[in-house]
Amino acid sequence: MSTQLAGKRIAFLATDGFEQVELTQPWQAIQAAGAEVVLVSPQDGEIQGMHHYDKGDKFKVDQSVHAVAAESFDGLVLPGGVANPDALRMCNDSVNFIRDFFKQHKPVAAICHGPWTLIEADVVRGRRVTSWPSLKTDLKNAGAEWVDEECVCDEGLVTSRNPDDLPAFCDKAIEEFAEGKHAAQTA
Amino acid sequence: MSTQLAGKRIAFLATDGFEQVELTQPWQAIQAAGAEVVLVSPQDGEIQGMHHYDKGDKFKVDQSVHAVAAESFDGLVLPGGVANPDALRMCNDSVNFIRDFFKQHKPVAAICHGPWTLIEADVVRGRRVTSWPSLKTDLKNAGAEWVDEECVCDEGLVTSRNPDDLPAFCDKAIEEFAEGKHAAQTA
Repeated sequence: MSTQLAGKRIAFLATDGFEQVELTQPWQAIQAAGAEVVLVSPQDGEIQGMHHYDKGDKFKVDQSVHAVAAESFDGLVLPGGVANPDALRMCNDSVNFIRDFFKQHKPVAAICHGPWTLIEADVVRGRRVTSWPSLKTDLKNAGAEWVDEECVCDEGLVTSRNPDDLPAFCDKAIEEFAEGKHAAQTA
Repeated sequence: MSTQLAGKRIAFLATDGFEQVELTQPWQAIQAAGAEVVLVSPQDGEIQGMHHYDKGDKFKVDQSVHAVAAESFDGLVLPGGVANPDALRMCNDSVNFIRDFFKQHKPVAAICHGPWTLIEADVVRGRRVTSWPSLKTDLKNAGAEWVDEECVCDEGLVTSRNPDDLPAFCDKAIEEFAEGKHAAQTA
């Protein structure tokens, strides 16, 4: 275990239908780098992970998104899974929680379908991002510059395309969380 | 069985992950109105229906989207289910098939998450539509006028929000298919 992220608190925001490995792999990597990791959700109790179309494990929610503030965290991770961001973007508290990290210039890392919620928070205008390819048009229509790369880092905003990109995604997210606030990360 | 749609051929375009009732209920209603109904998909064999998060039945594909033309049909139905349009919009032949109905001024009926593919086909600019609420921002960013109504009909384009809207959706889709081409339905 390294101490690169010692003293940092990183939120993972997800709900039913998240792609399991896109939560567990960054979770383990960020925890191994010394951070405290906290699973935040609009749901109480447990949320359902997926292995693509098949149900995976259930995960215990640590804190309700209705009762937390971005002020308590140093960074945010948004896993994918098609149903997860589709539900989160209809939850005002989740969208506001996400937007607050940008307002507070804190690093955010979103993978696969995760960036869909960034459209709802209206924080991708003029930002360079990637995602699962089905989101390309929605992200471009929301004002983002979309590129097809394993991992894109734009001033504290880290994005990747799919589970194959997880090693690069985790490394870059940890680097950004370690650096702390980025003035150009804003809403 | 009525003869309102006698001699008409209506395509249903879907792939794995479609919301089952959003295919079966319009399918039965349109068939009962006298039309021939054809299940078109980018996949061969069978495709997986869903009851929200749970797997439903498998349905036999009648024709490959890679080997059909909109010219052979009088109208198109796009069921929802979050994973289904998410996959279809990455399939060029599916997106072109959809766009061709608009180019040929033929009625199109899309429900729930179904309208996501209309963004990819770039056919919603200036059109009045509804959808599952998570698509609202994406549809507005693509140039649509989004409203929260049970069933919206704009010159041959019929849209609804969710399975509860199916009775109104089916009635209006049948009405539009019966009327035939609409000059203002275009791409």
